[in-house]
Amino acid sequence: MKTLHVIKIGGAVLEDPELLEPFLDDFQAINGPKILVHGGGNKASELSDKLQIDVKMVRGRRVTDSDSLDVALMVYAGLLNKKLVATLQGRGCNAVGLSGADMNLIRAVKRPVGEIDYGLVGDVTAASVDTEKLELLLNGGVVPIFCALTHDGKGQMFNTNADSLASVLARSMSGLRKVSLTFCFTLEGVLRDVEDPSSLIPTITSEDYEALKQNGTIHEGMIPKMENAFAALEHGVQKVYIKKASQLLTDTGTTLTL
Amino acid sequence: MKTLHVIKIGGAVLEDPELLEPFLDDFQAINGPKILVHGGGNKASELSDKLQIDVKMVRGRRVTDSDSLDVALMVYAGLLNKKLVATLQGRGCNAVGLSGADMNLIRAVKRPVGEIDYGLVGDVTAASVDTEKLELLLNGGVVPIFCALTHDGKGQMFNTNADSLASVLARSMSGLRKVSLTFCFTLEGVLRDVEDPSSLIPTITSEDYEALKQNGTIHEGMIPKMENAFAALEHGVQKVYIKKASQLLTDTGTTLTL
Repeated sequence: MKTLHVIKIGGAVLEDPELLEPFLDDFQAINGPKILVHGGGNKASELSDKLQIDVKMVRGRRVTDSDSLDVALMVYAGLLNKKLVATLQGRGCNAVGLSGADMNLIRAVKRPVGEIDYGLVGDVTAASVDTEKLELLLNGGVVPIFCALTHDGKGQMFNTNADSLASVLARSMSGLRKVSLTFCFTLEGVLRDVEDPSSLIPTITSEDYEALKQNGTIHEGMIPKMENAFAALEHGVQKVYIKKASQLLTDTGTTLTL
Repeated sequence: MKTLHVIKIGGAVLEDPELLEPFLDDFQAINGPKILVHGGGNKASELSDKLQIDVKMVRGRRVTDSDSLDVALMVYAGLLNKKLVATLQGRGCNAVGLSGADMNLIRAVKRPVGEIDYGLVGDVTAASVDTEKLELLLNGGVVPIFCALTHDGKGQMFNTNADSLASVLARSMSGLRKVSLTFCFTLEGVLRDVEDPSSLIPTITSEDYEALKQNGTIHEGMIPKMENAFAALEHGVQKVYIKKASQLLTDTGTTLTL
């Protein structure tokens, strides 16, 4: 069975045609089953501003209330997702735009309330994914394009982290196929110095990762991405890459190994 | 092979829980393949107002420019469609939210410019529908929920009339299955007097229709709906009904016959 390519693009990629256009060309060119997961970017914040919906923050963390979820539904599942689908169709890629609610593909549970109640945010596990229904699409030659929204199966939708969603999709499908997972963003890969593209780290083992985290080279936003990446490797995903969106098919970026 | 039920609900139904709730219960209860097509209602106008996007009118007709299309993508494909999907999932109905761009299911051509250029509005024909891909979903036990957006296959999305979309779906699928088509809205069916529910016309033949149109009983907004209904009957759809959304499974409303 052919390798399944699960690829995630961040919201900033969607907003930069110089990254998005070559990315979509490369994505279309991948021969075999593939899944795209996309983030949100600034469009949701822009719409919230225009609608004068306050972004609710608790202890510096963003909280999803009902109004913010509506904005996410409009921007992620509507505007961004369907434009991606139409654009890919124009390139001959038979895309279908999906949230986790569609075909009950990805269920989530409301993030448990600890120090912070994140509101309508859903956490996913590999058990969340209906792999059989995904196979139905992939075997039909269809290319799933996921926005990072899920549901609880009881009528409630959730905002979900796009990196986690990509990781969980890759992990769950690795029971059926060889799977590679690629996180695409605006940088060349994992850099020792984010200002210096030549400081790319070509390979990172889980041991390296612990050291790089300890010495502060990998910090902040990269940590959850790395955690999602290694979780995928530990649960059967064959290959994990972190690379620049415009270099999807080149032999660059960072390769992660256990 | 089981009869396929194609059911269209107008935007006003989406906005009225007293119609929508019983409708969704009934829709869920239909045993066998089914497709839902939904209209838009006032939410798109509300969002346009809030975003201070002028609704462009030419000779009294609404024109879809790029900003209005973005609003349609947000409201129809995002907010309304995904909420319907999540709600139906909560009722045990394995819904998938779709536009015509998804899986290239419904292609359209830009409405030809005559006296008016309607802008980004797409017209559909029965040849627009990929019936094979729709069958893949239906045979997989999945329930397609369409918003009234289509695409040209070259990257451009279009606003499309929801009645026409429902009719064209029903017609195209009638080559493969027995199909019934039901238009659900806020009234009891076709009424002689819109103010008087007891003036319901239980059956209308194509001959009746011509007479009712001539004498002005059927006028304005009902005419395109009736044209879509009879076009479906003329092209292989077995049954066409026009009824109140809260009475989907009752033996009421108007039945159309050739």
